[in-house]
Amino acid sequence: YAPTRCTTAQTSVEQGILPPCHHHETVHDPQLVPCTCPLFSCPWEGHLEVVVSHLRQTHRINILQGAEIVFLATDMHLPAPTDWIIMHSCLGHQFLLVLRKQEKYEGHPQFFATMMLIGTPTQADNFTYRLELNRNQRRLKWEATPRSVLECIDSVISDGDCLVLNTSLAQLFSDNGSLAIGIAITTSKVHNAEAEI
Amino acid sequence: YAPTRCTTAQTSVEQGILPPCHHHETVHDPQLVPCTCPLFSCPWEGHLEVVVSHLRQTHRINILQGAEIVFLATDMHLPAPTDWIIMHSCLGHQFLLVLRKQEKYEGHPQFFATMMLIGTPTQADNFTYRLELNRNQRRLKWEATPRSVLECIDSVISDGDCLVLNTSLAQLFSDNGSLAIGIAITTSKVHNAEAEI
Repeated sequence: YAPTRCTTAQTSVEQGILPPCHHHETVHDPQLVPCTCPLFSCPWEGHLEVVVSHLRQTHRINILQGAEIVFLATDMHLPAPTDWIIMHSCLGHQFLLVLRKQEKYEGHPQFFATMMLIGTPTQADNFTYRLELNRNQRRLKWEATPRSVLECIDSVISDGDCLVLNTSLAQLFSDNGSLAIGIAITTSKVHNAEAEI
Repeated sequence: YAPTRCTTAQTSVEQGILPPCHHHETVHDPQLVPCTCPLFSCPWEGHLEVVVSHLRQTHRINILQGAEIVFLATDMHLPAPTDWIIMHSCLGHQFLLVLRKQEKYEGHPQFFATMMLIGTPTQADNFTYRLELNRNQRRLKWEATPRSVLECIDSVISDGDCLVLNTSLAQLFSDNGSLAIGIAITTSKVHNAEAEI
């Protein structure tokens, strides 16, 4: 098993706004292998157990507590590529919300939001996350199983297997350049039962 | 007030799958003006009161009854542009679901889904519609106020102010090439109250 690594280095890492990391491989048994910071521009590697402290100490990423939280992503006008990131502590685990502005089609930036468990893919399968936007008489909800931070966030986003917003929809859901994202995590025993049928 | 009109004529109108109509103007007082078929390729005009019978008789569009229904759009692989259309009779009104496959970015077809009231914009403001996709441990919900069929569906879709799906997400939500869309309509007095605050 090869470790995932941030191979690309970029300069600007603003506080709370981190450019994307480029992973090129997926790790399926992370217990034995070093893992890495899921953020762009960071060459750090380490075991899963110390990812949270790395994210807090090196990148100053905040942790919000509670089953349901609201994350306010500010300065949505910043040019692509940009990441907005928050950690969410819930049900005995830490999750990472990544909101990425990216130009999948040149000249047409879109927003992609997904949650990742700071844990293994097997652990991630036990949870369901929900992202909710609610403004201007519109409501958009996305529910899915979180990925593990050991998987490649870039492929999640390039596949579009996440909450996707075009610019005009992001503006409709934004207030004064800020996007409020409601986040909820639940355990997903029902999902696993369904999968077995 | 100028009437909206289908100016573009195309050949293929398959049963239940109708290519898009091009409207270029929005009508705000439809009581006095002729309205038109919201479908591509159809030059028909008539008052709001007879739109439903026109859609049924000329285009053989089905009407589903009930507060909550499921519309199964088949043959999602058909090339863009393609429309899937169903009428939904609910709360004393008829609504039109339009699911459109369109290449907003060349070579990258996307799916856009919205509901329109067969009624005036003022009447439409009294309702909220919800579209829900649910499959493969993913759930996507979109809630908004329906537009009136007198408004331009093309601008709703080109603005992306609707449920938007990329191809890979549409595949994840599809079963054997068919997409099941849960549809619910409610009255939206709460929304109006919120808007006044």
